[in-house]
Amino acid sequence: MRTVIYPGSFDPVTNGHLDVVRRSLAIFDRVVVAVFDAPSNKTVLFNGQERVALIKEALTAIGVADRVDAELFAGLLVDYLSKKNVRFVVRGLRAMSDFDREFQMAIVNKKLLPDAETVFIVTDKQYFYLNSTLVKELAKHDAELNDMVPKNVERALREKFAA
Amino acid sequence: MRTVIYPGSFDPVTNGHLDVVRRSLAIFDRVVVAVFDAPSNKTVLFNGQERVALIKEALTAIGVADRVDAELFAGLLVDYLSKKNVRFVVRGLRAMSDFDREFQMAIVNKKLLPDAETVFIVTDKQYFYLNSTLVKELAKHDAELNDMVPKNVERALREKFAA
Amino acid sequence: MRTVIYPGSFDPVTNGHLDVVRRSLAIFDRVVVAVFDAPSNKTVLFNGQERVALIKEALTAIGVADRVDAELFAGLLVDYLSKKNVRFVVRGLRAMSDFDREFQMAIVNKKLLPDAETVFIVTDKQYFYLNSTLVKELAKHDAELNDMVPKNVERALREKFAA
Amino acid sequence: MRTVIYPGSFDPVTNGHLDVVRRSLAIFDRVVVAVFDAPSNKTVLFNGQERVALIKEALTAIGVADRVDAELFAGLLVDYLSKKNVRFVVRGLRAMSDFDREFQMAIVNKKLLPDAETVFIVTDKQYFYLNSTLVKELAKHDAELNDMVPKNVERALREKFAA
Amino acid sequence: MRTVIYPGSFDPVTNGHLDVVRRSLAIFDRVVVAVFDAPSNKTVLFNGQERVALIKEALTAIGVADRVDAELFAGLLVDYLSKKNVRFVVRGLRAMSDFDREFQMAIVNKKLLPDAETVFIVTDKQYFYLNSTLVKELAKHDAELNDMVPKNVERALREKFAA
Amino acid sequence: MRTVIYPGSFDPVTNGHLDVVRRSLAIFDRVVVAVFDAPSNKTVLFNGQERVALIKEALTAIGVADRVDAELFAGLLVDYLSKKNVRFVVRGLRAMSDFDREFQMAIVNKKLLPDAETVFIVTDKQYFYLNSTLVKELAKHDAELNDMVPKNVERALREKFAA
Repeated sequence: MRTVIYPGSFDPVTNGHLDVVRRSLAIFDRVVVAVFDAPSNKTVLFNGQERVALIKEALTAIGVADRVDAELFAGLLVDYLSKKNVRFVVRGLRAMSDFDREFQMAIVNKKLLPDAETVFIVTDKQYFYLNSTLVKELAKHDAELNDMVPKNVERALREKFAA
Repeated sequence: MRTVIYPGSFDPVTNGHLDVVRRSLAIFDRVVVAVFDAPSNKTVLFNGQERVALIKEALTAIGVADRVDAELFAGLLVDYLSKKNVRFVVRGLRAMSDFDREFQMAIVNKKLLPDAETVFIVTDKQYFYLNSTLVKELAKHDAELNDMVPKNVERALREKFAA
Repeated sequence: MRTVIYPGSFDPVTNGHLDVVRRSLAIFDRVVVAVFDAPSNKTVLFNGQERVALIKEALTAIGVADRVDAELFAGLLVDYLSKKNVRFVVRGLRAMSDFDREFQMAIVNKKLLPDAETVFIVTDKQYFYLNSTLVKELAKHDAELNDMVPKNVERALREKFAA
Repeated sequence: MRTVIYPGSFDPVTNGHLDVVRRSLAIFDRVVVAVFDAPSNKTVLFNGQERVALIKEALTAIGVADRVDAELFAGLLVDYLSKKNVRFVVRGLRAMSDFDREFQMAIVNKKLLPDAETVFIVTDKQYFYLNSTLVKELAKHDAELNDMVPKNVERALREKFAA
Repeated sequence: MRTVIYPGSFDPVTNGHLDVVRRSLAIFDRVVVAVFDAPSNKTVLFNGQERVALIKEALTAIGVADRVDAELFAGLLVDYLSKKNVRFVVRGLRAMSDFDREFQMAIVNKKLLPDAETVFIVTDKQYFYLNSTLVKELAKHDAELNDMVPKNVERALREKFAA
Repeated sequence: MRTVIYPGSFDPVTNGHLDVVRRSLAIFDRVVVAVFDAPSNKTVLFNGQERVALIKEALTAIGVADRVDAELFAGLLVDYLSKKNVRFVVRGLRAMSDFDREFQMAIVNKKLLPDAETVFIVTDKQYFYLNSTLVKELAKHDAELNDMVPKNVERALREKFAA
């Protein structure tokens, strides 16, 4: 059984992220969405537990919760991979600017853990424009979120900014 | 069983290509090295049959011939994917300049065949410098090829340029 | 009245090109589609007259022929701009790889003709994947062209490759 | 009458910005310099009102104040466009690194407001090196500012750092 | 005698930096490693004096201390160049993403000090993955640093994070 | 005495190339302009001898002929470096698009000849727009060449295209 780790901040998860999960399931048997939780990271909107919960709800809603898990991780990705005994990492690419940083991270991880293999898939072009920062900016100004995030994430964003 | 197509010109196959094959085998059950054979393409050094034969010898030498095949294809990659009933394509990335073209091709293929999924893996950094054009240029000037190509390819290059 | 030149090869015109024309009409009063006709350019599928005719038919079909013209030009773009007494050039951008070359051309034209102003607009994301080379490749292999080219261009491509 | 919005931080306005304004006036009838004023943005040197005032003085000095206005805006650019009933946005491009971010922003804005059209023009090559951050860094170290900023901005910078 | 300035943060110095120093010594007679010390920069792990001391120890260890010096500088690089009466700057390039920023800085410095000449050399490919941020991240999580930093830097990192 | 090789096609030499030569002389004691002469290269306008002669005349005109030589070379650059017993190569960078290819060539050359060191300098911004292809295109259409090429090159271009 081949498992792949999908690491990220997911603050919050978007439909672009879910698209990467769905497509990873075609290649791998299981996906673990690994939510990076840096204690000192003050700039997140949702805390680690909230982000994991939002992902789990969304995974259930799209019917893939049996093959996908979501959990927090901290520290180095390679240590997490070793601990989980997983060697594959998946990342979605949306644009040139993504690529350069992703490429360097893949090389670093390969250097630190020679068995690690980063697999890149191209995000569906309808999600090219989409990232968590944009979604938060829009929600903050009460703009429509339409097909950008799952319903539960939209509700959570509305509550957060209504507060 | 998951099969992936690894398309390219392979004129000739290098150790960088074989590295991509080997790493694809960790993710997929079978790899088909699909050698693009454009009839009008006059600039190749080895013809289609020669290129396939060189790959097959090299696959046998590294002991993966039972899980990897090599064959010619012509026409559109998406038609070839449909005919083979395979939806995965793998490509190795070496550098920024690779990426932009590969990214566009992945989007085009997805557009033409929505099921098609291109998976990118990062070439081992010891092969970043390596491509078939360089290998031919070096062989033409009788330079050392060391760890750049399999032994059978080195012999074939020497014969080609001795002629 | 502000006129803009939209230069290119248009071999053949695609719906992506027509999208640029339509959007240019929101900014400028008139658009001249300037079809570059280099006598020595043997690699075109349609000759200059055919390309201009295909564009004119397509412009009529989308109802903008009264504000858009199409004609051949040869030589330097800046000489053509001077002769037409037009100082604006429009180019559609689809991707990073487009940009670098376009940027250099804009600087060169500004250097040669200080009055020249190149205006870039971003191609609609549904056309990011699209270019004339792809369209010809698909038509050559008898693949579907759907929403890629106007109907008259699809017919012309079918005839060309049926011949 | 065609109006274009030129959004930015303008902290402070430079001669590169004024070059974009001047060139936009060749294409559009009116330009609105929209100074982004985020309340939480602590890192600006000049506050919103100061930045608008500096721009207005500079516009008067170069004699284009009758066709160009400057004002503060907050929130989403697309909301501001809707409120002003303007659909055009202009941005100057200086380099590759500018492009990628600008390109994404243009796609996002088009997604949020389908009528929105971002027009890019290439900054005059004498201003390629120039941005507000550089100008502040130079002023802070009492270096010459020569042809980088209008006279009133130079005075304001000197006063700010003398304080 | 030709002297070159090698400016940077060096927080801390890595073997990649030392590789640039060594290679600069093949071209220039002397190298001055200029450690940028911005008083307000709170995010450094080692303060300016510590960083200079770590570099000096490492230079002694690799036997080039007689031709290389390390010192703090603050303010504008061009002012520092003028004060030192040096016109050459060397920078190592590792990747595309490095290049764009470096290129702009080289142009700015040339603009501010026409005599200034920035020389770029390509970092050895074994150091492509390496930067100070990575090294600190690894040390923080007690990961191996192997061939990434000189021994004295490894010790200093261990002490810093043990504290 | 440090010698640097400046390799290229120089078809024909431009003022941008001469700027690189002049700036290399500040760093190195001697420059050898190495004109790549591929026998099969049919697309050059000036043959190898003509290109070398044009460079030599231009070097004399700017008064650096005593420290700069120009000669033909064929085959691999690394073989030429070995034969000349020179380890430094200089290349001018004008733009992002230059960089990626140059970076790969520098890595390849380092791989083939570990002693080889490629040094990049940034072309003066007044020459960013300039390359030999542009110059030929302009001369072909009888456009002004002003400050783009030395006088002798302008004469040679006029004669070539008058023929």
